[in-house]
Amino acid sequence: MSFFTKRYHPPGTGPGTLRPQDRQHLTPPRITLIDYSDADLQETQAITLEACRAALDRPTTTWIHVQGEADPATLMELGKDFGLHELALEDIANSGQRPKTELYDEQLFIILSQPRLEDGYAGTEQVSLFLGQGVIFSFHGGAHDPFEPVRNRLRKHAGRLRTKGPGYLLYALVDLVIDQSFPVLERFGSELEDLEEKLLLEPTKETLRRLHELKRDALLLRRMLWPQREVLNNLMRNEEYPIEEEVRLYFRDCYDHIIQIMDLLETYRDMTTGLLDLYLSSVSNRLNETMRVLTVIATVFIPLTFIAGVYGMNFGNKTDSPWAMPELNWYYGYPLIWGVMIAIGAGLLYLFKRKDWF
Amino acid sequence: MSFFTKRYHPPGTGPGTLRPQDRQHLTPPRITLIDYSDADLQETQAITLEACRAALDRPTTTWIHVQGEADPATLMELGKDFGLHELALEDIANSGQRPKTELYDEQLFIILSQPRLEDGYAGTEQVSLFLGQGVIFSFHGGAHDPFEPVRNRLRKHAGRLRTKGPGYLLYALVDLVIDQSFPVLERFGSELEDLEEKLLLEPTKETLRRLHELKRDALLLRRMLWPQREVLNNLMRNEEYPIEEEVRLYFRDCYDHIIQIMDLLETYRDMTTGLLDLYLSSVSNRLNETMRVLTVIATVFIPLTFIAGVYGMNFGNKTDSPWAMPELNWYYGYPLIWGVMIAIGAGLLYLFKRKDWF
Amino acid sequence: MSFFTKRYHPPGTGPGTLRPQDRQHLTPPRITLIDYSDADLQETQAITLEACRAALDRPTTTWIHVQGEADPATLMELGKDFGLHELALEDIANSGQRPKTELYDEQLFIILSQPRLEDGYAGTEQVSLFLGQGVIFSFHGGAHDPFEPVRNRLRKHAGRLRTKGPGYLLYALVDLVIDQSFPVLERFGSELEDLEEKLLLEPTKETLRRLHELKRDALLLRRMLWPQREVLNNLMRNEEYPIEEEVRLYFRDCYDHIIQIMDLLETYRDMTTGLLDLYLSSVSNRLNETMRVLTVIATVFIPLTFIAGVYGMNFGNKTDSPWAMPELNWYYGYPLIWGVMIAIGAGLLYLFKRKDWF
Amino acid sequence: MSFFTKRYHPPGTGPGTLRPQDRQHLTPPRITLIDYSDADLQETQAITLEACRAALDRPTTTWIHVQGEADPATLMELGKDFGLHELALEDIANSGQRPKTELYDEQLFIILSQPRLEDGYAGTEQVSLFLGQGVIFSFHGGAHDPFEPVRNRLRKHAGRLRTKGPGYLLYALVDLVIDQSFPVLERFGSELEDLEEKLLLEPTKETLRRLHELKRDALLLRRMLWPQREVLNNLMRNEEYPIEEEVRLYFRDCYDHIIQIMDLLETYRDMTTGLLDLYLSSVSNRLNETMRVLTVIATVFIPLTFIAGVYGMNFGNKTDSPWAMPELNWYYGYPLIWGVMIAIGAGLLYLFKRKDWF
Amino acid sequence: MSFFTKRYHPPGTGPGTLRPQDRQHLTPPRITLIDYSDADLQETQAITLEACRAALDRPTTTWIHVQGEADPATLMELGKDFGLHELALEDIANSGQRPKTELYDEQLFIILSQPRLEDGYAGTEQVSLFLGQGVIFSFHGGAHDPFEPVRNRLRKHAGRLRTKGPGYLLYALVDLVIDQSFPVLERFGSELEDLEEKLLLEPTKETLRRLHELKRDALLLRRMLWPQREVLNNLMRNEEYPIEEEVRLYFRDCYDHIIQIMDLLETYRDMTTGLLDLYLSSVSNRLNETMRVLTVIATVFIPLTFIAGVYGMNFGNKTDSPWAMPELNWYYGYPLIWGVMIAIGAGLLYLFKRKDWF
Repeated sequence: MSFFTKRYHPPGTGPGTLRPQDRQHLTPPRITLIDYSDADLQETQAITLEACRAALDRPTTTWIHVQGEADPATLMELGKDFGLHELALEDIANSGQRPKTELYDEQLFIILSQPRLEDGYAGTEQVSLFLGQGVIFSFHGGAHDPFEPVRNRLRKHAGRLRTKGPGYLLYALVDLVIDQSFPVLERFGSELEDLEEKLLLEPTKETLRRLHELKRDALLLRRMLWPQREVLNNLMRNEEYPIEEEVRLYFRDCYDHIIQIMDLLETYRDMTTGLLDLYLSSVSNRLNETMRVLTVIATVFIPLTFIAGVYGMNFGNKTDSPWAMPELNWYYGYPLIWGVMIAIGAGLLYLFKRKDWF
Repeated sequence: MSFFTKRYHPPGTGPGTLRPQDRQHLTPPRITLIDYSDADLQETQAITLEACRAALDRPTTTWIHVQGEADPATLMELGKDFGLHELALEDIANSGQRPKTELYDEQLFIILSQPRLEDGYAGTEQVSLFLGQGVIFSFHGGAHDPFEPVRNRLRKHAGRLRTKGPGYLLYALVDLVIDQSFPVLERFGSELEDLEEKLLLEPTKETLRRLHELKRDALLLRRMLWPQREVLNNLMRNEEYPIEEEVRLYFRDCYDHIIQIMDLLETYRDMTTGLLDLYLSSVSNRLNETMRVLTVIATVFIPLTFIAGVYGMNFGNKTDSPWAMPELNWYYGYPLIWGVMIAIGAGLLYLFKRKDWF
Repeated sequence: MSFFTKRYHPPGTGPGTLRPQDRQHLTPPRITLIDYSDADLQETQAITLEACRAALDRPTTTWIHVQGEADPATLMELGKDFGLHELALEDIANSGQRPKTELYDEQLFIILSQPRLEDGYAGTEQVSLFLGQGVIFSFHGGAHDPFEPVRNRLRKHAGRLRTKGPGYLLYALVDLVIDQSFPVLERFGSELEDLEEKLLLEPTKETLRRLHELKRDALLLRRMLWPQREVLNNLMRNEEYPIEEEVRLYFRDCYDHIIQIMDLLETYRDMTTGLLDLYLSSVSNRLNETMRVLTVIATVFIPLTFIAGVYGMNFGNKTDSPWAMPELNWYYGYPLIWGVMIAIGAGLLYLFKRKDWF
Repeated sequence: MSFFTKRYHPPGTGPGTLRPQDRQHLTPPRITLIDYSDADLQETQAITLEACRAALDRPTTTWIHVQGEADPATLMELGKDFGLHELALEDIANSGQRPKTELYDEQLFIILSQPRLEDGYAGTEQVSLFLGQGVIFSFHGGAHDPFEPVRNRLRKHAGRLRTKGPGYLLYALVDLVIDQSFPVLERFGSELEDLEEKLLLEPTKETLRRLHELKRDALLLRRMLWPQREVLNNLMRNEEYPIEEEVRLYFRDCYDHIIQIMDLLETYRDMTTGLLDLYLSSVSNRLNETMRVLTVIATVFIPLTFIAGVYGMNFGNKTDSPWAMPELNWYYGYPLIWGVMIAIGAGLLYLFKRKDWF
Repeated sequence: MSFFTKRYHPPGTGPGTLRPQDRQHLTPPRITLIDYSDADLQETQAITLEACRAALDRPTTTWIHVQGEADPATLMELGKDFGLHELALEDIANSGQRPKTELYDEQLFIILSQPRLEDGYAGTEQVSLFLGQGVIFSFHGGAHDPFEPVRNRLRKHAGRLRTKGPGYLLYALVDLVIDQSFPVLERFGSELEDLEEKLLLEPTKETLRRLHELKRDALLLRRMLWPQREVLNNLMRNEEYPIEEEVRLYFRDCYDHIIQIMDLLETYRDMTTGLLDLYLSSVSNRLNETMRVLTVIATVFIPLTFIAGVYGMNFGNKTDSPWAMPELNWYYGYPLIWGVMIAIGAGLLYLFKRKDWF
């Protein structure tokens, strides 16, 4: 996950400016229209904007989904045709926005962050939603359309989804986006459990790297998900929003989920910190163990080597002075010196053992 | 305690869906019915749902307890028969929920986390409670029924329990669930005291592991218990809840307990952090002590070994140059060199002692 | 100070239960009655409960103090005779409660934590106070009666104490309990100052242990004192409490004190953390110094020892090859090799000095 | 970025004092006047204060920009001529102020901090704005005029800027100042990504220094930018401010930006902390690796060197005692001793390998 | 700065007690009276209390300043003569109080902490202020009178000071006390900048000590200054206080200053923490560098010394076994062994260089 994911215009650009961007769109955004009532459902894939206009006049609930990065031209057309506010369109174009809700006249505009796992790294994709009179617009910037399960429930007429208006559809979409966090967090949790076990058995450099990445990802995820709490709070309580009283109850459920998600993220962050401390302790423990063995071996042999060195001196080779290394001439000199050396070695070992150094 | 304990449906599943789960229930949930008034008490173990319905019509207080993991079929039947809300049933099926209270029409729904010690590790089990008109439903997911002490008080007609309505029974159950934390925390406290003593005397790798586990468990417990503060606050103050004024006073007592529990957990978390620091300091202290002894021994013997090495050189073996190691030929050469070596060794020892290095 | 000091009944016990406890009371609680008005003061030590009842009917202010651990029988009698609430009595019996205020009908019930120094360790004792119509009950669990100074002021008719009602007496008692923190904190402060000096001069293992104990005591004290802020806030502001407007002003003074105490404790906690960091830095500094001297000595002598070793080899003993250690036969070989060794040693020393390694 | 950037008068100086300062102004401040309506725009560079007065009487919107450090004389003149409050002028003269808004009668006074990158280091420059009746005064202390993009939009009649009053111009200036943070933060983000990679591959002293600088700059930036949240909140909500309802909506957009900026700074600070931990772990890991190799090599050779030393002793040179190093006389003594040494070396290596020490 | 600076009476002392203290006052407090109106100013140094009473009756503004530690006798006289509240007098006598405001009837009582630099250490002195009807009492405990600049402005009739009442004089005194923090903080900032540079170049034990002192001083200063925020907030907003609306505006300026001061202190505290981390990293870096050089030198020479030791063995001295060190008899044995040793040394150096160990 990149550290800076927000797109922005150069400072000083006027508000609502949608400038042709330097990124090339290989695939133009794909528009899907679903128009449904309790009795009927009409679905059109890859429709043009003109074709959407007709659906809006019908008394049915209309859901227009724009998949992929919307180019400024399409956005401007959308804005003009359906009366979407320019500041909202700017936020869709400059993805990486902070989740929020805004009420422009009768239109409710929502930005959400959808977590996603990619090669084991956590990232987020921006989901933007407009709730208008009998219509929902949804925008998703990534390559993969996340809303297929909701579409299936609509097609199969499962549950209450078809019998209710756009407010309940909004709930279904928001609920789906938020619940995407659970698989990501489950993965986090199981990785942390793995890492904890590894850290206690044999910590490696790789474990450290992975731990650091998890901590960083938890940090970045938290930053993108935290404001959703406020979003759900608004959806649940703000009486000005065009959401039916009955649907608010369901948003309470979403709110519980986001609180659980934040709790878990917070807990995981604390845990990575705890695991990092454990890693450092383990590594330092292992070093200590190793160092102590060196200490003992070296400390035992260094005096012995000195003694051997002493009797390797060449005093007495050329002189007959009785002071010149007389030990060398003793009958039991050699076994005696071995005895001395063994005594010193054993004494030191006993001393170190008693001090519990190895 | 597992790091991720929440069960969840795949994102995009409709609300209130109770899907047949992949886990096999070897033992079906066990339903216990207690129907009591001040005068009378009727208890039926392992009853079927049909038999429960009759009890509801009577003016007595009815307590239906479902022990073990409730299968979706039973839950759906319960929901239909007794009018329990689908979102609440979903929360019972997907255990690992955050403690909370919800008011669905006249029904008060409560989720609590009950701490539990298992082989020295802390875990939590979900307790779900419904308070309706003259009836309480309780659900407990674990193998062991925690409510036996309350049942005994009912049977023995001890205290005021039988003379009061379901609100007071609710208090008795909530109080019991919350007070389960005290033995767990007492165990935590005594383990921390043990660990502190061990850390100051002789820290081992095992101490570190246990300390880390305690810290992690305190973290996980805190996450599961923290929201109970809000639950109790609601029970104490929310005037919409169907709880008598007189019983609210008793919930104030529960609230005090949960605050004490959170205080203790917080304090224990701070203490484990303090103990980890102490561990690191102790370990590093012990290493330092060891290292310093090595330093001293090595630093004393390394120059001496060098001197011995010098007089082990073979200069003068083949030449008669007066410059070739004349010391070897001196009459007192050998004792002199010992004198020099002892002087150097003693000098270094004195120096290091004065620098307070050992 | 023990890590878990709360007493609790087994979970599931009914509220207000006062069970005969397993601890034996060698000395029964000692009851002191003081009955005073501006004109008169009557004091009776070691009175029985029956004798107290008479004092209550008089229009004077009555202060009944129970010193020592109150046994369930006495408490139950007190509760029945004087109409004290069962939940309050349970809190007195199960000492180690969190400081709080509770209003039961007309009775104001207060729990406070009184800090105490014992062999240099901080602990707390529970003080419980009842304020009723013209009467104050006070309970103190420890062996030492803390209220003697107030009794002396009553006896000597010092200040306004005798001229005012039980509200002002409550203030005098609360003020005394809270001000007990100052000597404890002063002791903390002076110990921290001592430790800081020691840490900068010569840190020992003992310093670390004391520092850790201070930190832990600050933590435990904070947990027991923190809720007193809320207690004082209630006494100062809650208009429902039976305290005269004029006395509230004095509680503002107490409130200032408790805020100062919390500030100091917070500051001391931050300081112990700072001192622990300093300790670790100092210890690691000292190790570094030692290690660097080793490095220098070892690094200087290791190459010299190698050179001495080379010329201790026995090449040339048995062969006359001109390649076999010809240096040994040179006229100035020995002084030359000394020159080489001194040059290497001095060179290394110069190098290390320039790198500022010792 | 300097640690203390505030200018202040000596304590005790009266409020509103503008004292001749000791810094010399090589270039006097440059005043730019833009006077515009939807139909017309008049721009005058390097104008004198007298010339500005005329513009104020016209019904157009007047924007007076003072670039560079305003000397006390100019400020005093401004204050007298245009009725600017003395406390505000003092804040302009003593740059390094905390961002804030103040309402003096009808004048709205705003101080903002504009982040700026300079040789890779983050700094801030103070921007001061006055919003009066049909007039905006702007002050910028640095050498480089940041408002050129807005001037260009005015000149080109781009967007709505010319059609609206001074409130919208204020929004354009505030928006520009706040959005200056994005390039700075983007730079931070990419540097952090670079550093993270470097830390995992090969941490150097330079990486540490840069990391520390980033952390410190994030800290200083946060201090200067944090109060802007409050500033925007006031502009968005304070109904007393002379800003049109319609323009407030645009300030909501600015507010979102400042929240995003604070989120990012907070996240970056947490990340630098995480990276510092990673640095320490990496460095300690590298040291451990090195130390372990030393341990193994030394521990293998120290006993071998001792053995070689033993057989370098000169016992037996002068005596024929059969106890005097008989091994030297064995036929296979030398190969045997090599065998023993190789066996010890290989054994130790095997042991260390199994303990996973290298 | 001492860690515990509060003076307190023994717990249990009655409120408002001013006891003769054990400290001897070599110099009695010095009272200065200034009595001024717009037209006139009368100043009397070292006046007695009796002489002050006359001034109070005049319609002018009277400022009575008590410099030095006020003895209980003077305070009690002051209290009686001018109707100052006993709790306030107790706070003046027991210096080291937390800054606060109290309203006793019509008297506003203010305690402030004035920071002060003394030999490079930060400390605080208590300033106490009474605002009554046309009179201000000020108390300053230290040796040096801080209010001379205000007195000079009064004498010179500078600014508005003489034309306004005691509320504005109060502002001038509070402003002066608060602005005393800026020189202290500027000194902190520049010391931190110095220390940062030193830490990156060559960290010493002295740097650590100074860093620790700065951190501790920032902590202690913060504790004494933090409550002034609340004080200023009260002065700014509390409508009950006898301060004119117009003067409140000036207190807003003071409030801004105190917020800036707290921001800076907070930032400096974070910075000292960052610098301590940097110190530890630098020290550990330096140790690593040193250790690595040792590792390399030792690891290169230890095997070489072993080889030299091998050929120093005396095998072959007494036996003619062809297995007894035949290398010694080879024609090119000695150069060969040098070759082997140089190869091993160079090989190890190359290996370590490639691993980037030095």
